[in-house]
Amino acid sequence: MEKSRRKFLQQAAFAGTGLVLADVSGLLASEKNNNNNEIKNGTMNKLIKSKGYAGTDKETPLQSWEFERRVIGDYDILIDIKFSGICHSDIHTIRDHWGPQKYPQVPGHEIAGLVAAVGKKVTKFKVGDKAGVGCMVNSCMECTSCKNGEEHHCETTGMVGTYGAPDPTSPSGITQGGYSNNIVVTEHFAIKIPQNIDLQYAAPLLCAGITTYSPMMKTGIKKGDKVGVIGIGGLGHLAVKIAAAKGADVYAFTTSADKLNDIKSFGAKEIIIVDEKQDQLKPLFGKLDYMISTVPYAYEMTNYISCVKPNGFFTQVGMPINGELTINNFSMIFNRVNFNASLIGGIPETQEVMDYCALNKIYPQIEIIKADQINEAWDKVVNKKARYRYVIDASTF
Amino acid sequence: MEKSRRKFLQQAAFAGTGLVLADVSGLLASEKNNNNNEIKNGTMNKLIKSKGYAGTDKETPLQSWEFERRVIGDYDILIDIKFSGICHSDIHTIRDHWGPQKYPQVPGHEIAGLVAAVGKKVTKFKVGDKAGVGCMVNSCMECTSCKNGEEHHCETTGMVGTYGAPDPTSPSGITQGGYSNNIVVTEHFAIKIPQNIDLQYAAPLLCAGITTYSPMMKTGIKKGDKVGVIGIGGLGHLAVKIAAAKGADVYAFTTSADKLNDIKSFGAKEIIIVDEKQDQLKPLFGKLDYMISTVPYAYEMTNYISCVKPNGFFTQVGMPINGELTINNFSMIFNRVNFNASLIGGIPETQEVMDYCALNKIYPQIEIIKADQINEAWDKVVNKKARYRYVIDASTF
Repeated sequence: MEKSRRKFLQQAAFAGTGLVLADVSGLLASEKNNNNNEIKNGTMNKLIKSKGYAGTDKETPLQSWEFERRVIGDYDILIDIKFSGICHSDIHTIRDHWGPQKYPQVPGHEIAGLVAAVGKKVTKFKVGDKAGVGCMVNSCMECTSCKNGEEHHCETTGMVGTYGAPDPTSPSGITQGGYSNNIVVTEHFAIKIPQNIDLQYAAPLLCAGITTYSPMMKTGIKKGDKVGVIGIGGLGHLAVKIAAAKGADVYAFTTSADKLNDIKSFGAKEIIIVDEKQDQLKPLFGKLDYMISTVPYAYEMTNYISCVKPNGFFTQVGMPINGELTINNFSMIFNRVNFNASLIGGIPETQEVMDYCALNKIYPQIEIIKADQINEAWDKVVNKKARYRYVIDASTF
Repeated sequence: MEKSRRKFLQQAAFAGTGLVLADVSGLLASEKNNNNNEIKNGTMNKLIKSKGYAGTDKETPLQSWEFERRVIGDYDILIDIKFSGICHSDIHTIRDHWGPQKYPQVPGHEIAGLVAAVGKKVTKFKVGDKAGVGCMVNSCMECTSCKNGEEHHCETTGMVGTYGAPDPTSPSGITQGGYSNNIVVTEHFAIKIPQNIDLQYAAPLLCAGITTYSPMMKTGIKKGDKVGVIGIGGLGHLAVKIAAAKGADVYAFTTSADKLNDIKSFGAKEIIIVDEKQDQLKPLFGKLDYMISTVPYAYEMTNYISCVKPNGFFTQVGMPINGELTINNFSMIFNRVNFNASLIGGIPETQEVMDYCALNKIYPQIEIIKADQINEAWDKVVNKKARYRYVIDASTF
């Protein structure tokens, strides 16, 4: 692998330019020469033209927006985005639910495409490779967490989010995400997408997949464990599929009765349709080995937490407005459940879930939409109408 | 031990009565004979006269109240109460903070005294023994939790609290607690108090002691661990002493600057005086192996939780009004701390903390008060003026 990579670089032979490009005509903000695989000295220093959909304030519908990406650095790759998933976090962020934002801001952190150019020191990718980007695009790479492949827990700068994070290398001053036709990213933060998974299915694994996979693996769920999943949406339906693939007996909790047959097809053993009184939860008190909640709003957690066995773990990955959740300590002293939260996973683990899902044919259930359907899709996500992940066809930007 | 116990019973020789009494003149609601150690057939069926301080509604100061305890059953002991600790839970309960109550209700679940009578099948105690009662007086004794010595997690009836719990055997219909001169309790739920600890020091161990000891032991704190304690009051000061005795480096967090020297004397390595902005906590983010919070009100937990190392545990034992605490999930995804809560401990572990503290001379710092000072003491507890546990001299009821 490494050898052929080196060989490719030798054949490309761009001493001095350090840049390899595929078909990216019109992409650079400057003229480029006629050879699609070569750039003249100097042009590699040009900003990359990009087009996407951006939030312009916390209320207005997203709008088409042309902007620029940074110059492709030595360790950067340029990805020609093919598909970009819609995550509830995109909505929370742009809508200011998690704090004030800078605009225009292009959301999207479930990005899959083809490598269109590589910086001269890039070793992980070559032009034409399938590549993805998830929820982060940088970190210090020097602290213990970064060195341990837990870049999302970078102890110095903190992880740099794929959109909305201050970024001096970005012409707009902030990182701009995947609702667009391309992205420039440090190779380390790009994920290799195996040949045996289509890009549209790979995209949602980069947030929904890793976010549910990571805490389940860290908790050590195993064959025969009773694993609960609350909220069967974009994240939840992947949690069900992954947990079932790992051999767990999956208990899926949803408030949407019409999802029943879908959820069964995802591999859940039991599906619990929960109404406002939550009486359906009581027979399960103390029965589950583990529970993961993907609910992205504050909700009445008490009874759900009580479904876990004493000394078991309950992980909240859905992130409510302002992050605030109410815990009932009376309930907690009796159920003795450990509550924790989890944020995506590191780059090695993101690669792991990508490879695992490709190998085991764990594909998200998606609906492909065009760019001009994004705002409508957002409304459906908020109203629990997504079945189960919207993925934008990036050729429509 | 068991042999001498049997011998004692033989000497007592109350075939048919099954009751052994010490000096309890005037205690029975019926006449008794002149022999203080004997009761005529039938008199053992009499209710026990008791005198204490009771809450009469959720607002009025506690008042002196005469009431009756149940007949001493075969497995019961009658304890002549000598000292009774004041716990913040007493206030929360009587003041209706945790739900509606029945009145009159005598609070108190840190009870230490001398055994004054034993039922005919009692084997654990003999008259004259030092004995204590903590936060529970019954459970089913048949479920797995009860059989495993986790009676406070009884899976059928639930534990029966020492006061305020429905109790058909109690003439008042509810259990009545330790702010009184005696109590009748099933021997299983009474704790043996070693000779080498005075009753006034033993009393607070039965709630404040076990409540902090149990989660620290379950978490497995060990020599050299950095253990945080939040709230240095009745529970917290014992947590500091116990953790220090176990060899931990104790970090004590308090909002009361005037407690500094006291806390040092309890064995804390670091004392952090925390103001409203909580800036003092930031240098400790991610540094502690474990944290226990005794704060009995809702408070801003986020920064405290963040002081624990990733994947460490934070235990909340203080119980706020209605049990409600706000968790910030944003913080939790980054600090990766496991939050849990803990409720006292089982009878075997309560015996263990009693024996451990007696052996290692871990005594609560107490102030002995008279019955007519209870209401004033309650105000001081609420206003963080207790130093550090009020213990009522039961001879003053």
